[in-house]
Amino acid sequence: MFNERVRLERLKNKITTVEEAVKLFKDGMTVGASGFTKAGDSKVILPALAERAQKEPLKISLITGASLGHGTDGKLAAAHALKKRMPFQVDKILRDKINQGEVLFVDQHLSESAEQIHNRIIGPLDIAVIEVAFIERDGSLVPTTSVGNSVTFAAFARQVIIEINTSIPMDVYGIHDIYQAEDYPHRNVIPIVAPWNKIGRKSIPVDPDKIAAIVFTDIPDSPADIAPPDEKTAAMAAHILRFFEAEVRLGHLTDRLLPLQAGIGRVANAVLAEFRQSNFYDLTMFSEVLQDSTFELIDAGILSFASASSLAVSEVWHKRLFENLQQYKEKFVLRPQNISNTPGLIRRLGVIAINTAIEFDLYGNVNSTHIGGTQIMNGIGGSGDFARNAYLSIFVTQAASKSDTISHIVPMVSHVDHTEHDVDILVTEIGIADLRGLAPRERAQTIIDHCVHPDYRELLQSYFDRACKRGGHTPHLLEEALGWHTRFAETGTMKPVPEP
Amino acid sequence: MFNERVRLERLKNKITTVEEAVKLFKDGMTVGASGFTKAGDSKVILPALAERAQKEPLKISLITGASLGHGTDGKLAAAHALKKRMPFQVDKILRDKINQGEVLFVDQHLSESAEQIHNRIIGPLDIAVIEVAFIERDGSLVPTTSVGNSVTFAAFARQVIIEINTSIPMDVYGIHDIYQAEDYPHRNVIPIVAPWNKIGRKSIPVDPDKIAAIVFTDIPDSPADIAPPDEKTAAMAAHILRFFEAEVRLGHLTDRLLPLQAGIGRVANAVLAEFRQSNFYDLTMFSEVLQDSTFELIDAGILSFASASSLAVSEVWHKRLFENLQQYKEKFVLRPQNISNTPGLIRRLGVIAINTAIEFDLYGNVNSTHIGGTQIMNGIGGSGDFARNAYLSIFVTQAASKSDTISHIVPMVSHVDHTEHDVDILVTEIGIADLRGLAPRERAQTIIDHCVHPDYRELLQSYFDRACKRGGHTPHLLEEALGWHTRFAETGTMKPVPEP
Repeated sequence: MFNERVRLERLKNKITTVEEAVKLFKDGMTVGASGFTKAGDSKVILPALAERAQKEPLKISLITGASLGHGTDGKLAAAHALKKRMPFQVDKILRDKINQGEVLFVDQHLSESAEQIHNRIIGPLDIAVIEVAFIERDGSLVPTTSVGNSVTFAAFARQVIIEINTSIPMDVYGIHDIYQAEDYPHRNVIPIVAPWNKIGRKSIPVDPDKIAAIVFTDIPDSPADIAPPDEKTAAMAAHILRFFEAEVRLGHLTDRLLPLQAGIGRVANAVLAEFRQSNFYDLTMFSEVLQDSTFELIDAGILSFASASSLAVSEVWHKRLFENLQQYKEKFVLRPQNISNTPGLIRRLGVIAINTAIEFDLYGNVNSTHIGGTQIMNGIGGSGDFARNAYLSIFVTQAASKSDTISHIVPMVSHVDHTEHDVDILVTEIGIADLRGLAPRERAQTIIDHCVHPDYRELLQSYFDRACKRGGHTPHLLEEALGWHTRFAETGTMKPVPEP
Repeated sequence: MFNERVRLERLKNKITTVEEAVKLFKDGMTVGASGFTKAGDSKVILPALAERAQKEPLKISLITGASLGHGTDGKLAAAHALKKRMPFQVDKILRDKINQGEVLFVDQHLSESAEQIHNRIIGPLDIAVIEVAFIERDGSLVPTTSVGNSVTFAAFARQVIIEINTSIPMDVYGIHDIYQAEDYPHRNVIPIVAPWNKIGRKSIPVDPDKIAAIVFTDIPDSPADIAPPDEKTAAMAAHILRFFEAEVRLGHLTDRLLPLQAGIGRVANAVLAEFRQSNFYDLTMFSEVLQDSTFELIDAGILSFASASSLAVSEVWHKRLFENLQQYKEKFVLRPQNISNTPGLIRRLGVIAINTAIEFDLYGNVNSTHIGGTQIMNGIGGSGDFARNAYLSIFVTQAASKSDTISHIVPMVSHVDHTEHDVDILVTEIGIADLRGLAPRERAQTIIDHCVHPDYRELLQSYFDRACKRGGHTPHLLEEALGWHTRFAETGTMKPVPEP
């Protein structure tokens, strides 16, 4: 096992126990750890760090690719081990600590953390923790189910702790395309002109002298929860497919579309599932995460290639994929997240981006992160990287929820993550609003007519009409603009209490 | 004159009067016109169109590069000749019509209009009006003081009207770098890796059969008003220079910095002027507009090359530049705005972007466009293109104005153009807030401590403290968040009225 997975002889003496390795951490350190959408994350070191922090004061600043699996973020947060956390999280315990102000969370575009480390704005990194399948003979690292920020962590951390995950077969070698941008001011072109282009190495270069510890684990990734489409998400997916078909008829797109990016979750899965009942073919993805639906479309012969930074699949698909890796290897690639999400490539390829909103407003501003303007949910993730630079930027949300006490279309969003300038298409189960080339007043009426839940349509129309009377390029009644949110906070519903 | 400026023989019969040319317009048409920061705009055709519209019902949708000079937008607006206008304007009369809801304004990132026309999302364009210095022997167009969206207009309009401006010498040939991206899905790399790289032609290709009319004019561009630095802008500039010097000491930057982008206006000029008293050298610009200060820095031997989409200089500098063009020609280039402002190049080059805000909030969200949340001022322009993708995104605004009745730092901005995720550095005359790597609560305290006018510091601190008590990742009191704006609307000051 050791010989096979640690192929550089002089590193074998770095193999140690988790208990020993975790002693390398000191209070106040900045740590970079692999892991993106719960894939390829640290399975033993970070949990052991959380245990250590239960017993002694120990706080780190933790930078990852994106979310971690196995409740690790929650364990760290519960142990008060996190001073600062970036750039993304999805953990309930951690979220509460962030919202209570105990953990300082830096909610960052996923393409930017590596940039800031590379440019020495964040850091220095004391320790990198990287899950790998094996260490090559030159000391380079073969990652597992995500690449995330690991290339940058390996390059810039003072010390590196390796978790070799033996549950990942060694023939994972070749699914990654490892590329690191040059230093400013002599940065070159990233020569990707199609999702299937591979431009880099197959493993992550690292100075073997920095490898301070190597531990073994066989714990698999947290399996992705794949929620089946429900009535609402199926309706949204259908709206999007009909829209694509109309764009093809107008000559804007072909039946091959353009490379797709789909955020994680139900709607993305529903959209991808919907393609199976369509005429679209030879599709590609240029995304940040690949889910079950990606591989189902590959199997169906509809999707020909998928590029991303991580694999977040169910247990069933994890097994199928790794048992038949040779068959799928030519169909997908995993890249560093500063490549999968880089602005220039997203525009160059003309990506069609589909992301989930918490709420959007009359004018098409989107809130992706905050409940009631103050409480963070997960984070912006890659949605800004994609939405801002996409050929088409689509956001989806349900029109209303919680027994329709919440309208997800409001007069003014309580937090803006994507501005009116960056949002092309809005979709709810009610319908679709195409905002391209529309002025604010046109956008508002389109959104009211096509997206709003019937219970809120008159209310929003009334707000808009009264605001228009007062005038302005973007008509608003500032004293009422956030009133739906404050009403919900006070009464438990955004609907006005009827006059007695 | 005709022989010299219309070098393709068969186009000579297209030379006509403005009165004849303007008959080509019909009600309801979509028109693309050259012009960017009042440079290289139509001097006679659009004004004549405004005159025609005074006499008969005639409304067009008008797309330009950016702002037009000579009050042309105002003339068109006053004549009710504009149905829709995009992507930018700075005219008082037009602004009023937009805010009254008469003209539909689409406030767009300046890099995106050409994309949307190219992708046939906006349009079709019935007529393009393009100011040129001369028409080459192959029928291609040599632009004047801006490139803007003219490359795309020439390619996609059904008919083209040429305004030959004889006030621009013919040796302007060679200052432009004309490049057009390929169609999706086969778009290639834009091979610029340094501001001085030239990758295209010297003139704009156009099908000569589409040229419907050629008219002559010798009206020069509206000269740029160059406001000298005042005490506040000088203070902001000094803060920025001290920050750059600190970044050099930290090893983040060198004395050559990275390519600079500076929005139009006083602060940008003040910053560039400040470089003359510094150790910085061999600077470059990768910007959208070049002003007097650019050429002053070139003359001072501090700036070695400047790339942009337009020249917006004073009368003095216009004369000096065109009388000594050979001397300056190797020092600058004008590009299409979808190249000067393209996301991928801005990140690849690592641009340092300095733009002006109307207001920003506790958490670093920036409003660049709206007064009181509803009334548009100018538009987002290129600030989003640059801020979102820059190496460093800096926004400047005065801390307070109008006898300090307005604080430009507020609890929550009334309109968001740049989100907290995209803003690195905020500057007022009071000081500078470095928000990089900070969580929202840290950002808020940094902004209060460094940027806020003393008259508002306690008020904002009180808001923040009370919001923190209520909790949240981004603490707010939604019922008060826009209260400073509504108080100003009601009482004429953001300061609370003292209790009687």
